[in-house]
Amino acid sequence: MKTAVIIGLGLIGGSMALELRKRCGYQIWGIDANAENAQKALALNIIDKIVDYNHITNADMAIVAVPVDIIPKVLQKALNYAGEQTVVMDMGSVKGSICKSVENHPNRKNFVASHPMAGTEFSGPEAAIYNLFDHKVMVFCETEKSDKHLVEKVIEFAQKLNMRIKILSPEAHDRHTAYVSHLSHVSSFMLGKTVLEIEKDEQNIFDLASTGFASTVRLAKSDAAMWCPIFLENRENVLKSLDEYIKNLEEFRTLIQNQEDKKIRKTIKEINYIKKILK
Amino acid sequence: MKTAVIIGLGLIGGSMALELRKRCGYQIWGIDANAENAQKALALNIIDKIVDYNHITNADMAIVAVPVDIIPKVLQKALNYAGEQTVVMDMGSVKGSICKSVENHPNRKNFVASHPMAGTEFSGPEAAIYNLFDHKVMVFCETEKSDKHLVEKVIEFAQKLNMRIKILSPEAHDRHTAYVSHLSHVSSFMLGKTVLEIEKDEQNIFDLASTGFASTVRLAKSDAAMWCPIFLENRENVLKSLDEYIKNLEEFRTLIQNQEDKKIRKTIKEINYIKKILK
Repeated sequence: MKTAVIIGLGLIGGSMALELRKRCGYQIWGIDANAENAQKALALNIIDKIVDYNHITNADMAIVAVPVDIIPKVLQKALNYAGEQTVVMDMGSVKGSICKSVENHPNRKNFVASHPMAGTEFSGPEAAIYNLFDHKVMVFCETEKSDKHLVEKVIEFAQKLNMRIKILSPEAHDRHTAYVSHLSHVSSFMLGKTVLEIEKDEQNIFDLASTGFASTVRLAKSDAAMWCPIFLENRENVLKSLDEYIKNLEEFRTLIQNQEDKKIRKTIKEINYIKKILK
Repeated sequence: MKTAVIIGLGLIGGSMALELRKRCGYQIWGIDANAENAQKALALNIIDKIVDYNHITNADMAIVAVPVDIIPKVLQKALNYAGEQTVVMDMGSVKGSICKSVENHPNRKNFVASHPMAGTEFSGPEAAIYNLFDHKVMVFCETEKSDKHLVEKVIEFAQKLNMRIKILSPEAHDRHTAYVSHLSHVSSFMLGKTVLEIEKDEQNIFDLASTGFASTVRLAKSDAAMWCPIFLENRENVLKSLDEYIKNLEEFRTLIQNQEDKKIRKTIKEINYIKKILK
């Protein structure tokens, strides 16, 4: 029976565990720095057994699904224990610093830098769900530095999860995700903050919140331990996207202040083009 | 048989028409300045007949569901034709300017200023759907200026739609909706704009978009003819909320730039409180 070791039993690690068992027939061994989380994952039947890092040597796959600031240390350790046939994947939302951290590791060829573009605003083992990755994108980076049989293995795995595969350089990945993922989180966190600050005085403001607000502020429920390191690790790209966002907000503010009816309509109509892109 | 005249056969007017027929047994007459829209609504069986304003006199209810910049003119006309038993409601997302526009109308008592806090990012008769208003809030303003039997009638109507009822002053309504609705739309429009601008050079950026981006940018698909007038009519409140939003973004930007790990985590954890408020 094939075995996968999942390190970090939260939303992503837990959901990967569920799919590996169901769709690929793996037995699932789990590691989590938080003993309570590991016990929860066991109780929820997400993993079959709690193990130590040395079990990675005989495993077919190891998945590092911890916050991005912790990935380099954990990945290093996982690669130290990797057997010849063990493929080690990380699930980090930032790829440049992670790829760099293992570029000289003797087992670099066992590593495939990975990022499943999927998630929810929830966290912890209880957040693990089936079908989280269906029809989503799996990004692989620097596959030329990985053993080609192991790359084939992770591609086959992603296909079993019904994922679309994209191969990007770490730099392109980090630049793109700053816009389509990280900036969305900043905008949503700050929307939540702005409304909460007003709500202190105006208790009933949330009674008026409809599905529009709920949708826009959904990501503001996301976990600090996951998102703070992402913003910091991808700092330069996030700051650039944020500067452009603030500039656009200020320009739109001026249009409203000057009652530029035609220009506001034109701006909105151009933005509506996003309908055609997002199906 | 009771009759309602719906003026403006788009998302809100069309959805109100569907409920009035299904849950209240009304026959539905329709008016739309756009003849093509009126014909579509008829073809879609949203309305039973296309009529003129003079049919309002014998109707039990008239609902004005046009963009907020057009409401004052249409509302004036609808009230001119109101019979003694006709209740005229508007559906505007801004209430101050609308209430003011009819304060001296001889039929002011026939008017109940209304705002159903519900919608989608779609528009036109094709966007009309059943159950749009269930469990949402219906705001009524200045009910003390309306005939009390007609107020009872609209409360009963909102109850049949499974709506929660809130009575607010026009000023409180406009201040609150700036934060929980209008600001969300600005933030989403500008997120869409920022990402579209980058996408011009980077064709594949949207391949990476996951459910998080889709959720945050959903409102950027909203209609310019509806939203431009809302931003302008509620200008002062929108500018105030936008200033606070931009200030929060700039402060968060500084925290990222200075790598203030602890402060970023603390900020996000405080914002996560929104989980408890939004169920």
